[in-house]
Amino acid sequence: MFVDGTHYRTIWFNSQKNVVEIIDQTFLPHQFIIVALSNLEEVARAIETMQVRGAPLIGATAAYGVALALRHDASDENLANAIERLTHTRPTAINLRWALERMRHKLNPTTQEERVSLAFKEAAEICDEDVALCQSIGEHGAKIIQKHYDALKEKRPIHILTHCNAGWLATVDWGTALAPIYTAHENGLPVHVWVDETRPRNQGASLTAWELAEHGVPHTLITDNVGGHLMQHGQVDLCIVGSDRTTAQGDVCNKIGTYLKALAAKANDVPFYAALPYSTIDWNIDDGLVEIPIEERDPQEVTHLWGIDAQHQRHQIHITHPQTQAANYAFDVTPARYLSGLITNCGVFPAQKSSLEKLKSQLEAQQKHLST
Amino acid sequence: MFVDGTHYRTIWFNSQKNVVEIIDQTFLPHQFIIVALSNLEEVARAIETMQVRGAPLIGATAAYGVALALRHDASDENLANAIERLTHTRPTAINLRWALERMRHKLNPTTQEERVSLAFKEAAEICDEDVALCQSIGEHGAKIIQKHYDALKEKRPIHILTHCNAGWLATVDWGTALAPIYTAHENGLPVHVWVDETRPRNQGASLTAWELAEHGVPHTLITDNVGGHLMQHGQVDLCIVGSDRTTAQGDVCNKIGTYLKALAAKANDVPFYAALPYSTIDWNIDDGLVEIPIEERDPQEVTHLWGIDAQHQRHQIHITHPQTQAANYAFDVTPARYLSGLITNCGVFPAQKSSLEKLKSQLEAQQKHLST
Repeated sequence: MFVDGTHYRTIWFNSQKNVVEIIDQTFLPHQFIIVALSNLEEVARAIETMQVRGAPLIGATAAYGVALALRHDASDENLANAIERLTHTRPTAINLRWALERMRHKLNPTTQEERVSLAFKEAAEICDEDVALCQSIGEHGAKIIQKHYDALKEKRPIHILTHCNAGWLATVDWGTALAPIYTAHENGLPVHVWVDETRPRNQGASLTAWELAEHGVPHTLITDNVGGHLMQHGQVDLCIVGSDRTTAQGDVCNKIGTYLKALAAKANDVPFYAALPYSTIDWNIDDGLVEIPIEERDPQEVTHLWGIDAQHQRHQIHITHPQTQAANYAFDVTPARYLSGLITNCGVFPAQKSSLEKLKSQLEAQQKHLST
Repeated sequence: MFVDGTHYRTIWFNSQKNVVEIIDQTFLPHQFIIVALSNLEEVARAIETMQVRGAPLIGATAAYGVALALRHDASDENLANAIERLTHTRPTAINLRWALERMRHKLNPTTQEERVSLAFKEAAEICDEDVALCQSIGEHGAKIIQKHYDALKEKRPIHILTHCNAGWLATVDWGTALAPIYTAHENGLPVHVWVDETRPRNQGASLTAWELAEHGVPHTLITDNVGGHLMQHGQVDLCIVGSDRTTAQGDVCNKIGTYLKALAAKANDVPFYAALPYSTIDWNIDDGLVEIPIEERDPQEVTHLWGIDAQHQRHQIHITHPQTQAANYAFDVTPARYLSGLITNCGVFPAQKSSLEKLKSQLEAQQKHLST
């Protein structure tokens, strides 16, 4: 989407410099810094330190990580090692494993000579496909927004609450949860977004608010505590969040705090959707509460924060007492019964096993068609 | 309670210096600073800038504000003006109005000569009564904690989640929501407190974590997003929060985000209590959602944060993009049906109109008994 009037993706191959380039998201919203990645370790650290984050972007970045690793050594052993190294950069994101398996599947049968160029080609395809997927999510989701807008008794902007950042910064472009919002906005619909701050890493405040501002979409930042109050008072027309991992029965594992908003939406009859590419669906698990391990991250993310001072200098401060111990659970699971539907690139599906099985059959038929 | 081994209240009259002294809570947890208040404006600003906060402490401070104003000018007109000025310092806290009405009722009939000393005496009595009330809340609430501890299948610390700061820093001593926890701790029960950070002002991270640490009560800081996840996984045995204003039918108006935790508690069968002195009950209103105006505070509380740098110097940083607009709703209303009970100084009552009417009759009988 647009940054200061110029169109960007979150990751691209710079053929002049022969490196992969990313936007370093840890410096947003205060500085817009592009970082070059030229080897496996740089890619692994970019994922681990969350210079890139968001399930689809992590997958795309990992794919480029494999390509960069092979450029150094295209052996079978190094391919396996690179995939192994990248697999352990983040424990929750299913796309990471999905992208790496795709790279393995594509590259294992090839000769070392052709492997490098094929790897870069495949990574680029993963990126292009992600953009197309997100555009489809945008189109399907925009219809839902339009429907709710049409149902408003008085014509006013439609208020959509989102949690964390499932915008274009979390994908290659367009985003998942924000794709329907961008699409509705481009269609001329008056939208207003309530942006959850999303502690502890503040991806809502730092990333969602920034990208909506750069693209010109009206929005208001709120703390994570506010959404329930707004829903009680009819100030939220619908919620759209992303999903880092979706189970076969439609449970959604997403940024910590998503579950609380889903509870509030249910209690106040506010539609609550998750938007996701099919690749975040983990067909091997049903019960997200029991089967998804929740990543615990460094407590320093809770106790320390980055910001700028009055002179626009960037500083990190310790916001708690130095002795205070914190726990930092990164995700939670919203059981399927709290979801009004899953907005996917293949259409909108009820969050239930039988519906998702239809999606799976549809995808398998496509795959079969493509491979014949 | 204890600070570095010494017992403190949050407000006291320093007869040597002839001033009222408070702990400036805006500097906690990084600095422990005692501030002297010597006139009405200093008191009004201390409430407005939240050097003192928490419904009971606001009431006690306002009472001393009246006394300090009368020391300057004990006329009927100045008494009325002082009460008027203090009434508008914070819109939500019912205790503020309760304490000011008590001062008006006590001082209106008196001569100007005796008014000043009576005012200081009454303010001191409000403080002492608040301590006694909080101790009673602690005793009644500790029985609930004991009951839940006794019901544990395996003996382990009992996990209690609290939101914001309804500890001794919010009252004169002991606290409301934390009084049962302090009492249980003093009784030798192993308690562990999940402390909600409580954005935007971070009273949980800055005040609750600090006072529990100073008093030696085990606790862990979490962001406001985490409680639902913990409850889904059986890691919260009960919740105890405070109340800034309670309606005659038992709706609880408390720090923004309380409602989300109440929803999570209900969904996961976790008992959810509000602890409050009877003075926070507003007998004139029933439906908190409709009848309680919600204070909107400066958006800068959302966009800026104070903390210390690596050299322990205190700084304020801007955590969002300078252009980002924020909304800052300070409270929300938890409907009575989500509450397991109200822990008051008169005992534990179901959050329903008929039960609270019994409490009211009990209080009126006491009043009648006192005035005869």
